[in-house]
Amino acid sequence: MDNPFFKNNGPFKLRDILKYLSLENDENNQDLNIIDIKDLQNSNTNEITFFHSKKYKSLANNTKASFCITNKNLQNELPKSCLPVIVNNVLVSTSMVTAKFYPDSINDDFDEAIEEINNTKFSDKVKFGENVLLGKNVSIGANCMIGHNTIIEKNVIIGNNCSIGSNTIIRNTLIKNNVRILDNCVIGKHGFGFFPKHHKNLRYPHMGFVLIEDDCEIGCGSTIDRGSMSNTTIGKNTYLDNQIHIAHNVKIGENSIIAGQVGIAGSSIIGNNVKIGGQAGISGHLKIGNNVEIAGGSGVIKDIPDDTKVMGYPAKNIRQFLKENR
Amino acid sequence: MDNPFFKNNGPFKLRDILKYLSLENDENNQDLNIIDIKDLQNSNTNEITFFHSKKYKSLANNTKASFCITNKNLQNELPKSCLPVIVNNVLVSTSMVTAKFYPDSINDDFDEAIEEINNTKFSDKVKFGENVLLGKNVSIGANCMIGHNTIIEKNVIIGNNCSIGSNTIIRNTLIKNNVRILDNCVIGKHGFGFFPKHHKNLRYPHMGFVLIEDDCEIGCGSTIDRGSMSNTTIGKNTYLDNQIHIAHNVKIGENSIIAGQVGIAGSSIIGNNVKIGGQAGISGHLKIGNNVEIAGGSGVIKDIPDDTKVMGYPAKNIRQFLKENR
Amino acid sequence: MDNPFFKNNGPFKLRDILKYLSLENDENNQDLNIIDIKDLQNSNTNEITFFHSKKYKSLANNTKASFCITNKNLQNELPKSCLPVIVNNVLVSTSMVTAKFYPDSINDDFDEAIEEINNTKFSDKVKFGENVLLGKNVSIGANCMIGHNTIIEKNVIIGNNCSIGSNTIIRNTLIKNNVRILDNCVIGKHGFGFFPKHHKNLRYPHMGFVLIEDDCEIGCGSTIDRGSMSNTTIGKNTYLDNQIHIAHNVKIGENSIIAGQVGIAGSSIIGNNVKIGGQAGISGHLKIGNNVEIAGGSGVIKDIPDDTKVMGYPAKNIRQFLKENR
Repeated sequence: MDNPFFKNNGPFKLRDILKYLSLENDENNQDLNIIDIKDLQNSNTNEITFFHSKKYKSLANNTKASFCITNKNLQNELPKSCLPVIVNNVLVSTSMVTAKFYPDSINDDFDEAIEEINNTKFSDKVKFGENVLLGKNVSIGANCMIGHNTIIEKNVIIGNNCSIGSNTIIRNTLIKNNVRILDNCVIGKHGFGFFPKHHKNLRYPHMGFVLIEDDCEIGCGSTIDRGSMSNTTIGKNTYLDNQIHIAHNVKIGENSIIAGQVGIAGSSIIGNNVKIGGQAGISGHLKIGNNVEIAGGSGVIKDIPDDTKVMGYPAKNIRQFLKENR
Repeated sequence: MDNPFFKNNGPFKLRDILKYLSLENDENNQDLNIIDIKDLQNSNTNEITFFHSKKYKSLANNTKASFCITNKNLQNELPKSCLPVIVNNVLVSTSMVTAKFYPDSINDDFDEAIEEINNTKFSDKVKFGENVLLGKNVSIGANCMIGHNTIIEKNVIIGNNCSIGSNTIIRNTLIKNNVRILDNCVIGKHGFGFFPKHHKNLRYPHMGFVLIEDDCEIGCGSTIDRGSMSNTTIGKNTYLDNQIHIAHNVKIGENSIIAGQVGIAGSSIIGNNVKIGGQAGISGHLKIGNNVEIAGGSGVIKDIPDDTKVMGYPAKNIRQFLKENR
Repeated sequence: MDNPFFKNNGPFKLRDILKYLSLENDENNQDLNIIDIKDLQNSNTNEITFFHSKKYKSLANNTKASFCITNKNLQNELPKSCLPVIVNNVLVSTSMVTAKFYPDSINDDFDEAIEEINNTKFSDKVKFGENVLLGKNVSIGANCMIGHNTIIEKNVIIGNNCSIGSNTIIRNTLIKNNVRILDNCVIGKHGFGFFPKHHKNLRYPHMGFVLIEDDCEIGCGSTIDRGSMSNTTIGKNTYLDNQIHIAHNVKIGENSIIAGQVGIAGSSIIGNNVKIGGQAGISGHLKIGNNVEIAGGSGVIKDIPDDTKVMGYPAKNIRQFLKENR
């Protein structure tokens, strides 16, 4: 993932990373530069990655990263080109190192470096309402509208022919063309991701963004959180109704229709032409195929193959559910 | 339905309507004027209606409309006084013709023709907060309060003794007396209604409004969408808690109590004295009788007769549900 | 409960209270002063309490109140030091008397006595965005941030190092240190509590407040209602995700994690180290123990003991649920 929004504070010397993690410094290669942190699949030479579960063994075998945060049991799965950095808790250490590279991606305090749109170069290119605020690193295409009291915080790119409603807040988001975002939404804040610690949870960085493809509509009062190491994506011509919550790292395909009050938990992947009825919930880390229909109110807790209709909690084949519940 | 809010751009000649739908023009009556579009039941002489399903056969038999968008199989159900306009997809053609009559009813871009309440005739009649905006065709009765940052967009009539909270957006809505609408609501936007088309869904018009009767309360963060061809109605002394979603064309009766996070899908009709527990969901096009109690978390997928208590998903008689789930 | 926010309009003579309730005045003690109204457990000499159900018999036996609103059947449970005030409907009369003591605690019309933060003593102590409004009786600690368009209405105390997002509304709330409240929340409004009456429900007073302890995070679009006679409490280091609804009088313990779109109904008590998955719902007046895990989408309708994992609707032991739903 090329990161258009969050500043990379690197490179850092391996020495500094080890010291920061309170690890011993008696190894070679202390002077090597580490230029970025990415996941196993996307990392490259001179970058650091992380490997915390056997589930990702085949990705680890083939990583191009030069360094990898991992533990004793997993280190032998890495290729010779990749130097293991052995820690006790891989995810906590990864979070710490990511925070070192991308310190701005952890908390979302309100954007102070903001201006009234009247005072920006967009004042004569965009139709806008009262009290519209724009942050730094914002770009807006042709023929766009932005409603009253809406705040486009830093790191937002909006394409052409987009209509943003009133009282909406957007940050760290890439919006393509012909997109409609209605009133009272919050888009692009960090996800609900942290390591639980007694007395003081440890938030992990969210350096991904929200990507909304062409021709989408996002209903009133919806929230779409940005990703941690990858993006949260809404595919072309997908429509979301009101009061929907899309968690971090979720990817939704094209031409999908999602009714009111649906919630999709972190990192789930939804296919194309999917229909989800009102108030349905989808657990995290699931894969929902193409052309799937999920009845309103369902609770999906496992993967659903293509071309399937499901209903119930836990969601099962809709015919079976209706037969059992006559 | 007499439409107080959306401008009728008609009349149109039959010739123009046929041309617009890419239909052949070799029939008689090309010069006849069509003055409005309504549903089968409410349409009259010189108006056009639509008929797309045998379910509505008896309404079609008795329509007073002079014209009807329908298909080959259904056309013989119409009375002789009604000229069929034969199309392939009745609903898509109806949507197109409605859009021709009511072009303002499709999209809800933010209201540009808005003024600060200070600059309007209401500045000394209404108690209002900071940054309150009013659109055109707004009327506000005696002894009303409107909170900070609230936007009353165009086409809103508010009765006497109403209290509107802060950060709320209202459009295309008729509010009677003694109504309380709390903070962060969005009321009167178009419903989630469109014809799915690959690469570019076709939105259909929403020319209905939201009607909120006397003595209602609407909780924080709630959304109430306006109707398509009919209205969305909240009956007298009905109270809604926070984060409720009421979809287009829903009608709720009097003295009903609806707890937090409930969702009611499009076109369902809820009776009087109905109690709905938190997070319950009601599917579309259902009829819920009077004095019904729906337990929190229930998913209602079929009609419920008067004086019934239900629970579960799918919702069933509450005694049966509790017996089966001991 | 010592009430820092709502003004006590008392004391009132017993004579006035009886007259106000349309009760006969032929008893002794008419000139006695009543200084406050509290529940059975917390009331003291010269205060009035109420007793409406045998469930609270042991509390009634030991109340220190000098007066008690109750009915004929229950009056003999009171100690001799407590004079019964016999009424037909205990809760309605209690509501009326409470409203007499605390008339400001019933309705939440927008706060008129508000100022732009620029014009207050906090203008150089707090980092704030555009259009921030502060009401009376507001205090803000060191090193706090308040985002754009946020309204801190009357009766709010904020500790040190807190970050409040944009478009958020807070009233009648006590926030400790290091708390983060994200965008578009509404915190501290009255609960959804009233006595249903045909044609005109009777709202009861909410004189409690919302207490948010150290190190909490409250997600976007969440609503937390204040309590009626007690407070609504969020314990230390508890994190709430987006679009959560916490009803009046709920108490949540420490180190708990509550995922998106969860709803907790009135007066339920949640323990420490509790994890609640997305969209789960918890009915009112329940007790959820410590270290409980509630799976996403569950509907909890009875108490849950410590150290238990539950799932389903109604929620049951998670192993049993998964076994039954393979």
